[in-house]
Amino acid sequence: MWKDRFCQPIRDLLADDAWLVAEEGYHPREQIVYESIFCLASGYMGSRASAEEGFCRRTLPANYINGVFDRSEAFQRELANTPDWCKLKMYYQCEPIAPEEGNTPEDYLRVLDMQHGLLAKRYVTQAADGRRTKVEILKFLSRAHGWCGGFKVWLTPLNYGGLLEFENIIDATVTNFIDFPRFRVKHIRTTDLRALDGLGCYLGCETRDFKLPVGTAAGVRIVDEQGRDILKSRAFRPYGETACEFVDAYCREGQTICVEKYAAVCTGRDVPESQVAETTRARLQAFVDTGFDAELQAHLAEYARLWHRADLELTGDDRLQKALRFNIFHLMSTPSRTDNRTNIGAKLIHGEEYGGHAFWDTELFLLPFFDYVFPEVARNLVDYRYLLLDKARENAVKNGFRGAKYPWESADTGDEECPAWTIEPDGSCYRCYVADYEHHVTAAVAYGGVHYFELTGDEDFFDREGLEILCETARFWVSRLEYNAEKDRYEICKVTGPDEWHEPVDNNAYTNYLARWNIRKAVEYLALYKKEKPEVYARLAQRIDLAEDEPKRWSEHAEKIYLPDTNGVIEQFEGYFDLADAVIDEWDENNMPLWPKALAEIPKEQRCILKQADVVMLMYLMEHEFSAETQRLNFDYYEKRTLHRSSLSPSIHCLMGLRVGESEHAYQYLCRSAYVDIDNNQRNTREGIHAASAGGTWQCVTLGYCGMSTTDTGELCFTPHLPEQWQRVRYHIRWRGADLRITVTQDGVDVEQENGTQPVIYLCGGERRTARRI
Amino acid sequence: MWKDRFCQPIRDLLADDAWLVAEEGYHPREQIVYESIFCLASGYMGSRASAEEGFCRRTLPANYINGVFDRSEAFQRELANTPDWCKLKMYYQCEPIAPEEGNTPEDYLRVLDMQHGLLAKRYVTQAADGRRTKVEILKFLSRAHGWCGGFKVWLTPLNYGGLLEFENIIDATVTNFIDFPRFRVKHIRTTDLRALDGLGCYLGCETRDFKLPVGTAAGVRIVDEQGRDILKSRAFRPYGETACEFVDAYCREGQTICVEKYAAVCTGRDVPESQVAETTRARLQAFVDTGFDAELQAHLAEYARLWHRADLELTGDDRLQKALRFNIFHLMSTPSRTDNRTNIGAKLIHGEEYGGHAFWDTELFLLPFFDYVFPEVARNLVDYRYLLLDKARENAVKNGFRGAKYPWESADTGDEECPAWTIEPDGSCYRCYVADYEHHVTAAVAYGGVHYFELTGDEDFFDREGLEILCETARFWVSRLEYNAEKDRYEICKVTGPDEWHEPVDNNAYTNYLARWNIRKAVEYLALYKKEKPEVYARLAQRIDLAEDEPKRWSEHAEKIYLPDTNGVIEQFEGYFDLADAVIDEWDENNMPLWPKALAEIPKEQRCILKQADVVMLMYLMEHEFSAETQRLNFDYYEKRTLHRSSLSPSIHCLMGLRVGESEHAYQYLCRSAYVDIDNNQRNTREGIHAASAGGTWQCVTLGYCGMSTTDTGELCFTPHLPEQWQRVRYHIRWRGADLRITVTQDGVDVEQENGTQPVIYLCGGERRTARRI
Repeated sequence: MWKDRFCQPIRDLLADDAWLVAEEGYHPREQIVYESIFCLASGYMGSRASAEEGFCRRTLPANYINGVFDRSEAFQRELANTPDWCKLKMYYQCEPIAPEEGNTPEDYLRVLDMQHGLLAKRYVTQAADGRRTKVEILKFLSRAHGWCGGFKVWLTPLNYGGLLEFENIIDATVTNFIDFPRFRVKHIRTTDLRALDGLGCYLGCETRDFKLPVGTAAGVRIVDEQGRDILKSRAFRPYGETACEFVDAYCREGQTICVEKYAAVCTGRDVPESQVAETTRARLQAFVDTGFDAELQAHLAEYARLWHRADLELTGDDRLQKALRFNIFHLMSTPSRTDNRTNIGAKLIHGEEYGGHAFWDTELFLLPFFDYVFPEVARNLVDYRYLLLDKARENAVKNGFRGAKYPWESADTGDEECPAWTIEPDGSCYRCYVADYEHHVTAAVAYGGVHYFELTGDEDFFDREGLEILCETARFWVSRLEYNAEKDRYEICKVTGPDEWHEPVDNNAYTNYLARWNIRKAVEYLALYKKEKPEVYARLAQRIDLAEDEPKRWSEHAEKIYLPDTNGVIEQFEGYFDLADAVIDEWDENNMPLWPKALAEIPKEQRCILKQADVVMLMYLMEHEFSAETQRLNFDYYEKRTLHRSSLSPSIHCLMGLRVGESEHAYQYLCRSAYVDIDNNQRNTREGIHAASAGGTWQCVTLGYCGMSTTDTGELCFTPHLPEQWQRVRYHIRWRGADLRITVTQDGVDVEQENGTQPVIYLCGGERRTARRI
Repeated sequence: MWKDRFCQPIRDLLADDAWLVAEEGYHPREQIVYESIFCLASGYMGSRASAEEGFCRRTLPANYINGVFDRSEAFQRELANTPDWCKLKMYYQCEPIAPEEGNTPEDYLRVLDMQHGLLAKRYVTQAADGRRTKVEILKFLSRAHGWCGGFKVWLTPLNYGGLLEFENIIDATVTNFIDFPRFRVKHIRTTDLRALDGLGCYLGCETRDFKLPVGTAAGVRIVDEQGRDILKSRAFRPYGETACEFVDAYCREGQTICVEKYAAVCTGRDVPESQVAETTRARLQAFVDTGFDAELQAHLAEYARLWHRADLELTGDDRLQKALRFNIFHLMSTPSRTDNRTNIGAKLIHGEEYGGHAFWDTELFLLPFFDYVFPEVARNLVDYRYLLLDKARENAVKNGFRGAKYPWESADTGDEECPAWTIEPDGSCYRCYVADYEHHVTAAVAYGGVHYFELTGDEDFFDREGLEILCETARFWVSRLEYNAEKDRYEICKVTGPDEWHEPVDNNAYTNYLARWNIRKAVEYLALYKKEKPEVYARLAQRIDLAEDEPKRWSEHAEKIYLPDTNGVIEQFEGYFDLADAVIDEWDENNMPLWPKALAEIPKEQRCILKQADVVMLMYLMEHEFSAETQRLNFDYYEKRTLHRSSLSPSIHCLMGLRVGESEHAYQYLCRSAYVDIDNNQRNTREGIHAASAGGTWQCVTLGYCGMSTTDTGELCFTPHLPEQWQRVRYHIRWRGADLRITVTQDGVDVEQENGTQPVIYLCGGERRTARRI
């Protein structure tokens, strides 16, 4: 087992191989990918797995903090790379002890322990003069106190001894897009560097635009095998934007010494600005006082609790089992449990792509996982949209509409962050129309809120926030509709659906359906509230200045929205069927579809080929609007024309494939979605973890293969169809205040209830059952 | 020839191979050595030859400015590493175009053109994807305007084309001792980063201790083969302590584009502090307005003038010829022609070792070259000591003496910079007694001033400065002497001579002789001035509060200074002959002497073995005090016991070897001295160029082999003894206002006079001749 290759203290902590993702052998050019794969997140911040030892040439070190954004010279506000506390340089007589390009270490092994939220590494370096050093490192970001992180280094000079030197570093020279010169931006300004006597060093900085202060403090201890402090000397060195503490210790040949690095972070989001420095110090002091091992134990207890709720046990495919946990691990580690002013970026907090912005991915791909598994986090995510509702209102007005129009990309302020212009690596600039035309995100926000409410029954949310969002988004759509007098119908012209390769188009089926759903749902809930909760209705009506006849007028609009013919293949947008047509007939070595050669000479927007399938997505979300036959027909038609160049596409094709009986295809899509980052199968994992894939993968297994759903009346329902090779799937959900353990086998479904006052009823095979108490 | 491997514009500029020092093939671990060897200096600043392209792992980039020192956390004030303006990163689609560890470029050739003060480089990189790019770079620091430097890059994408991207960088993250963590110190603080619209970017900083402002500005142009501006876009990016200007340009496959980088520097030493930023900008503007090529021509004209005066042509040993020029090139390029508040560091301005401090090396090893070749620079160097005379007076008082005691290591303030404590790489600390006991530097300063005066006849200096230095240093020695009543003699106890392996000792022969010389010379000149220039005498007497009888008292002291017996071997210090004795009987593969094994177990200070020979040095300086036989005897004795672990030692052994007829040994010492850096034969060239070796080497050839000297009456005199293999030596000196061309052959000496009103008379072979007019 991998853990057996580590020293005893690490071996004692690590899980079995089933829970480990491993990097075997050192490949300098792959480090940047592993930095994402092995990124640790604490719910407060994320720390990419750049080498603690420094000296890597190809690296994207990053410490992102949930909610800390900045724009400066960038095209958009983006998660700001904050000071890197994760460096500890090690030397013997000025020569670094580190893996380096051109000096490949021996027996290099790094493992991510997903069960425990740990990152462990070991190798032996050989210096030019033949000195060999064994290095083993264990890193964690405390899930118990998300602002704390640290690591231990066990260092063994194998064939020499003497004074080892270390630099405890906090590095604020960091930028975003460090290896992309055109986009490289520095988001922080260093304001303060100082020694924290006896504790370590401190670096204060602030974001450049909003001057949000960020404090980082770090200290080291060096102990021998008996735990005795052997740190010899300590000197603080301010290097401009790098706080450095130089320390040293003697180590005999063959002796192992242990260097512990402690770090703590605080921002002006956590405490009043004037208290940031002192709180940072206090957090570091608390971490040091608690001690590395005790804090680690608290962290492990938190991960045990998290996994008890979130694990998805799969018997029958070990590789897929690991990938499922990999996706869940990163997904559940990212969002805050307490902060409803932050959301989840499209690449989680694991990379810089998309600036850490929330997209519609949150509502349609991520929320179902949180709704079922961590509803308290889901509440934060829906709160986030409510807290930015005013900005969405401004955004509607700015674009000439009413109600609330949510931005395509959302950071901390709720402003539209999607840039109007983009530059390609070859230097070509192009006008990016996404923010102008891709409006379906607003329906997704409404959809997410309604489904959160319907799944969790959180009336507090819906009364105070959800219904308001639903109405204001409905209002947006009503104002967005254009009346076609000739045809006596409402249309949405110049719009872009999820398939961004055709933009803008008229009457995109996906958008029109979603707009109608949004308006209808608002009208429906308003009617219900008017009747059942008149005081909530009245308060809302006043808040949003709702005219008495407005719901009726909305309804009239909704019912006249143009929708394409649903007998047969649904046209993705008006005119789609006129495009140059061909089906995909070639796949690459990874089984990814290739552009049909027949269409090679035709511009993208004049071809039928899709980036991702709007209609398939639509049918997934609006199952009851389409007959089973229509769904099968459309899946067949569009699948042959979809290149899946969005990581959102495969999971939906898995779910729809299952629904229409294409189980073999479905399984391929499941794999594509599940392995996207663990296998780096889109070659862009260096930029972060695909959040939507992670959430979509969870949906594939639970909502797809296990057939979990809710009825119109809000009852939990199961219609499982496990693949032959799966013996069992087991997972937990929180359902109306109770923790349920769901076990799906080839023989059926078993639901066990761990707690809660009311017995949980569920449907299975048309049968109504009561969950077994355990 | 090497120049034929370059593109036409570079080829047209470069000298023939005889003037070039070449680095063939790229060796990452040797870069740091070539950074010293290829360092360019302008008299204003020095720019180490770190790769312009960046991305080197092992590099010590440095831009030192004469007179810009700082201490901060260092042990001593040191030449502060100021912002590196010498970087221009180049990319194609984010992939650097640069030599890197693990990506060795093809056909790599770099040459230092000593004749023209140019550095040229060429190679072909191959990227991982097979793209090949030819790169050729030509760099210079303008000798016409020393604050300007720049380079041109000719870039040819050999098998691809597209948008090339560049970063014009001013990097203020620089530190001293960047690869020596324990000593690494940052000396500057960035205060200002901004774009200079249409011109480039600006970075303002200040030294951390004295807040001396340093401005750096840099701009780029990109032109095609026809010289047309093809720069496409320009964006300023402030990265904390790095000012960066991102620029790009299209380049077709096989096309060559040329990127010109212009930089200019200004400090608070040049102009009032408030004008630094504006002056920096104006200097850059002037450089850009002049144009790269026109400034380069002005630079070449200056080097032509410098070499006309400084070249040392040697026919008969091409390798040695190149080494002689190499030493002269770096030596003459370093000091300012106009600034008498700076001196020359022991490693020139080419590296960080010894902090850029002036030692006695200046007076005894460097001054003779400048006295004869560039007396205007020599004047600055002696002025420097006068300007710091008050500090030397303070230093005397602080140490309990009178008069002026010069510091062992001298930076800008004149304070003693030699630290009292030192740490070795293995972590051991030791008390460094050099500043406490090594007093002979004070005599060296007096000696340098007197010889400058006697060689140049610069009465202005001696009247206003030199005599005052001479008297105050004499006063120091008088106060330093201790009277031994028992023996009725004056002694200097607890003192260290040049041989630092024996410290402190009593009555070091070298020190006692120099002290006597210093006092005697003061008395002698005071007597002369009293008689010949009574007004100067009177003014001085008042200035230094000279009592009427003081010279007489000095003289009484001087004549009673204890000196060892000069019949036979002179004892280096009292008790030296009692030390454990053995002679060197083994040499390493480089012919460097090794410790005699017989003494292996005995502590260094109890062994007769010397770092460098005091007595040999003494006899070189005080020829007339010792008989020829005594000199021969002592050379023989001490040579067998000297390890030459100071780079000051070989040149003196060459000079003395010649004098005593050991011509074969002498030639070996000449080579050791001449090749010390060009061959990196002490393995420490990475830290800078050995100034004393450079100056000593010049002395070996001119004062040694060509036998140039001056008589007591101030007449130029030649007693040449060329080695058989040398056909001719030719060089210039400036002698009493006239430029002389000296040609020494196996047949004799020819002196030609280029200018001057008075005919120059010289002695040769006992004959008095008149220089031929040319």
